[in-house]
Amino acid sequence: MANKFLEALQSKLRLRNVIIREFLAEFLGTFILIVFGNAAVAQAVLTNNVKGSFFAINWGYGLAVTLAVLVSGGVSGGHVNPAVTLAMAVWGKHPWSKVPVYMVAQYLGALLASLAVFAVYINALDAFEPHRSLATAGIWATYPGSMTNINGTLVTDFLSNGNGFGDQVLGTMLLLICVCAITDPRNMEVPKYMVPLLVGFVVLNIGICFGFNSGYAINPARDLAPRLFTILAGWGETPFTAATSEGLAWWWVPVVAPHIGAVLGVMVYLFLVELHHPESQEFALPQVLSHESVATTSK
Amino acid sequence: MANKFLEALQSKLRLRNVIIREFLAEFLGTFILIVFGNAAVAQAVLTNNVKGSFFAINWGYGLAVTLAVLVSGGVSGGHVNPAVTLAMAVWGKHPWSKVPVYMVAQYLGALLASLAVFAVYINALDAFEPHRSLATAGIWATYPGSMTNINGTLVTDFLSNGNGFGDQVLGTMLLLICVCAITDPRNMEVPKYMVPLLVGFVVLNIGICFGFNSGYAINPARDLAPRLFTILAGWGETPFTAATSEGLAWWWVPVVAPHIGAVLGVMVYLFLVELHHPESQEFALPQVLSHESVATTSK
Amino acid sequence: MANKFLEALQSKLRLRNVIIREFLAEFLGTFILIVFGNAAVAQAVLTNNVKGSFFAINWGYGLAVTLAVLVSGGVSGGHVNPAVTLAMAVWGKHPWSKVPVYMVAQYLGALLASLAVFAVYINALDAFEPHRSLATAGIWATYPGSMTNINGTLVTDFLSNGNGFGDQVLGTMLLLICVCAITDPRNMEVPKYMVPLLVGFVVLNIGICFGFNSGYAINPARDLAPRLFTILAGWGETPFTAATSEGLAWWWVPVVAPHIGAVLGVMVYLFLVELHHPESQEFALPQVLSHESVATTSK
Amino acid sequence: MANKFLEALQSKLRLRNVIIREFLAEFLGTFILIVFGNAAVAQAVLTNNVKGSFFAINWGYGLAVTLAVLVSGGVSGGHVNPAVTLAMAVWGKHPWSKVPVYMVAQYLGALLASLAVFAVYINALDAFEPHRSLATAGIWATYPGSMTNINGTLVTDFLSNGNGFGDQVLGTMLLLICVCAITDPRNMEVPKYMVPLLVGFVVLNIGICFGFNSGYAINPARDLAPRLFTILAGWGETPFTAATSEGLAWWWVPVVAPHIGAVLGVMVYLFLVELHHPESQEFALPQVLSHESVATTSK
Repeated sequence: MANKFLEALQSKLRLRNVIIREFLAEFLGTFILIVFGNAAVAQAVLTNNVKGSFFAINWGYGLAVTLAVLVSGGVSGGHVNPAVTLAMAVWGKHPWSKVPVYMVAQYLGALLASLAVFAVYINALDAFEPHRSLATAGIWATYPGSMTNINGTLVTDFLSNGNGFGDQVLGTMLLLICVCAITDPRNMEVPKYMVPLLVGFVVLNIGICFGFNSGYAINPARDLAPRLFTILAGWGETPFTAATSEGLAWWWVPVVAPHIGAVLGVMVYLFLVELHHPESQEFALPQVLSHESVATTSK
Repeated sequence: MANKFLEALQSKLRLRNVIIREFLAEFLGTFILIVFGNAAVAQAVLTNNVKGSFFAINWGYGLAVTLAVLVSGGVSGGHVNPAVTLAMAVWGKHPWSKVPVYMVAQYLGALLASLAVFAVYINALDAFEPHRSLATAGIWATYPGSMTNINGTLVTDFLSNGNGFGDQVLGTMLLLICVCAITDPRNMEVPKYMVPLLVGFVVLNIGICFGFNSGYAINPARDLAPRLFTILAGWGETPFTAATSEGLAWWWVPVVAPHIGAVLGVMVYLFLVELHHPESQEFALPQVLSHESVATTSK
Repeated sequence: MANKFLEALQSKLRLRNVIIREFLAEFLGTFILIVFGNAAVAQAVLTNNVKGSFFAINWGYGLAVTLAVLVSGGVSGGHVNPAVTLAMAVWGKHPWSKVPVYMVAQYLGALLASLAVFAVYINALDAFEPHRSLATAGIWATYPGSMTNINGTLVTDFLSNGNGFGDQVLGTMLLLICVCAITDPRNMEVPKYMVPLLVGFVVLNIGICFGFNSGYAINPARDLAPRLFTILAGWGETPFTAATSEGLAWWWVPVVAPHIGAVLGVMVYLFLVELHHPESQEFALPQVLSHESVATTSK
Repeated sequence: MANKFLEALQSKLRLRNVIIREFLAEFLGTFILIVFGNAAVAQAVLTNNVKGSFFAINWGYGLAVTLAVLVSGGVSGGHVNPAVTLAMAVWGKHPWSKVPVYMVAQYLGALLASLAVFAVYINALDAFEPHRSLATAGIWATYPGSMTNINGTLVTDFLSNGNGFGDQVLGTMLLLICVCAITDPRNMEVPKYMVPLLVGFVVLNIGICFGFNSGYAINPARDLAPRLFTILAGWGETPFTAATSEGLAWWWVPVVAPHIGAVLGVMVYLFLVELHHPESQEFALPQVLSHESVATTSK
């Protein structure tokens, strides 16, 4: 930034408070994640899969993660997910004092993004259906999925709370195992700038492989904030009364389970790989320097 | 380039004028962008989605951006979009004196590319329909989209001018927020050679997530120049009379709105992230050297 | 890892034994490979291709390889495939003494992953079909494929044992030729952190190009361990009695043939490329110099 | 390669003749290109698009290029295309003396790959159709394409020789413009190891955007050698008598036109970009240092 105009602007407006800078970065990062991710779902739903598909949604959400980390990673570590923030704090990789600030930023970013997706697709929503239904509520939050069985019959209530809970725990565990590996400077030595793409591919693959049970929330801010938004925006009580095959409410599962899965995921990587790296001096190499403030690891 | 033939050629033909070199690079870059991008649409339209699809078009346009920046980025910064050029100038990242030259190059590149796509698909166009219709005009410029509603009915006039304008502002904002992050040497430290791929993925994702309202022009040269071409090539007045659900003309929306969105996008990134980077000496690290002439940042 | 909590944990729990560390890495890596890969198949099968497709499976398995190597590569080399381990040992690139340990880790990782996929999709399996059939057994292990002929008729028993054996030999040969090239420091000089993505793309492309004869196992642990699991989990004897067009049992083909193909693949790369690299000091050169001999430019 | 077995092998077998090494690399590279590429077409054709699609073929051929350049690039430059070799020679970037050797290697590699695809899919071919027809000949060589018009009617003879010739010239021009940009050390400074992926993406995008007129051969070895193979393998004279809409033979177009397009493509990049780079010393900058211990190679 070597020009006078921006230098002047900067000298007046620069925020020197680290936690405010991190708040803004997490807010913008989570906004980017949800505005792209939920819009990808909207495009598939509102065109009846003519200009979208489950595979396109998987790419949309995967690249949404890539872009979210590109936008925020250098400042806040690019958590953009309260479960990631919690797991990092539990395992000593992020200060507990910052956890509430990060989480508030993440939920607010997701809320604003929910509104943006609503606004940009307001004409299409009105044209799609006369009254707001569960079909379009699924653009914002996740619900127990439907499937087509061996006879081609649509089955809409196959998922139990227990299976759904396990699905969210496993999905978030896998996310964190891979994120820990990608940002571990002693494994494949991934440079900082490759982290966003690879983390995006992790989420792309969770969507391809673990997407249909209940829509792979694996992020409480991605699910709860948009769900609250749909209440405010006219979808009635359905977002919080929608239930699994046992008739139990669904909404709390993608809020609680990812926190547990994330903590377990970091634990698995620590106990099977990271704790056992030898005490070598590999760190001294120039390239590894840039790993210290890599995404999802705090300074 | 260590051979005598090319050295001789170079000593005779080398242009030392920076602005002419930049003009040629923007011209070639925008040509590459539009010749691939519009041909991707042509392949889907002219085969009735048998050898194309909306997802394939998204990839085609995304990679078109990647290739356009690879071809031009090292010389001109790879704007290939008048809205990008304007926004960079407004925020002091590009000299105002170069703006007209860049824009002329971009519109001319897009115009020549429109002709090339027409020429390479002339047999197919004639076989596809007896008279030139709006169905094929959409190969070149964008129009308010169609959607399939909850009953599977095709709805062709759902978009209002206001919603369409907002769609183009938001899309271009998101483009610029991400481009600023990718080329910010103090965020994820993306090296110059990774910029084309990541910027291409931004446009890929805008297509997956914000493509169906009106075809994600987010680039006035990409839309207006091909639209002018269709007038000249026999599509009559339709390209400029096509209207939104309110009966208002559409053509000026993807020309005006992206300029506004681009300026806002740079502003958002500046105010939430870039202006607040600490005044550190991080720049002195070896890896960052290669960032100085990165795409979309002027020297 | 610069915090006290993790340092304390590490000082208590660190395993200093190299072979145990490698065992754990291969175990976790192969778990990641199979848990993603088989779940990708599950999502396509259990939704009758509504939320999956053969192309999505190809991506799912390709990225599964990428993530498996990211998780394990820095510790064990990321074989996650007994055929790779054998071939490396045969050609002197891996100590024979470690081969059994690697293989046990790979088979155990694949077995645990098979259980995880079963658990996470147990509700969906029960909803999909009343009794366990070959249709869902194919989620875990590979079987001779089906095809749709020129008249659109489904043909389910076209593959002979000989053709299937050759298919597995060729597929694994191609895998190893490409893996050897990618990891050859004297060919395109791929840095460590790009290896997982490129190796994943090799497997993605084997799926796109050589996937339909019999499901591209090209990895005995990926096939035999999940096949054993299906016996234990209620699929009866079918997994081991399923036969080719000649009525011969299929199960041993994806176990035996990949070992042969892998050994041949390394041989082809050694004899056509690797053995002939000059005894130069190219290694010492800084990387920027390597731009001079970049692809499609002769020296 | 620091083990005694391989050192012994190398001391006995190493070929020190540069042109023989380059011949072997081009042979293996072109084999990899065609064995993957044509198998991707086979998978779509022989399953009637159930386990393949035009988009999957585009990815299959694009990644085939990536893998071909990974396998051969460090030795021969990874031309794997006679049109590339010719264009490089014409513009002084490749010695004329090597042109015949490169071309023979390319045609032989393509011929062997054609046989491998035939062998691995022999059961499937026999099950697909009773007699060899043009439908399956298209697995190997390219033919004027078919399209589905605005009424959904299949049109099979829309392409004239002139349009098809222009299509091949344009496609190969675009390939070479992009390849020149990617390998130009003074444009986006793409390191050697990123070249295979980016060049693969160029071909992926040519397939997405310029694939349906006649199957984007853009490589005489990719087209002529497999076409000769189909004559030998029982497809009769059709491969050489198949004609365009004017009744003129098609086979020579993808042989002649790519050579012209390649020469023009290098020219366009030279005259618009490469010749005008300033005479600076940018080369001296360090970029990255860590290439040494790559995955799946034991230490």
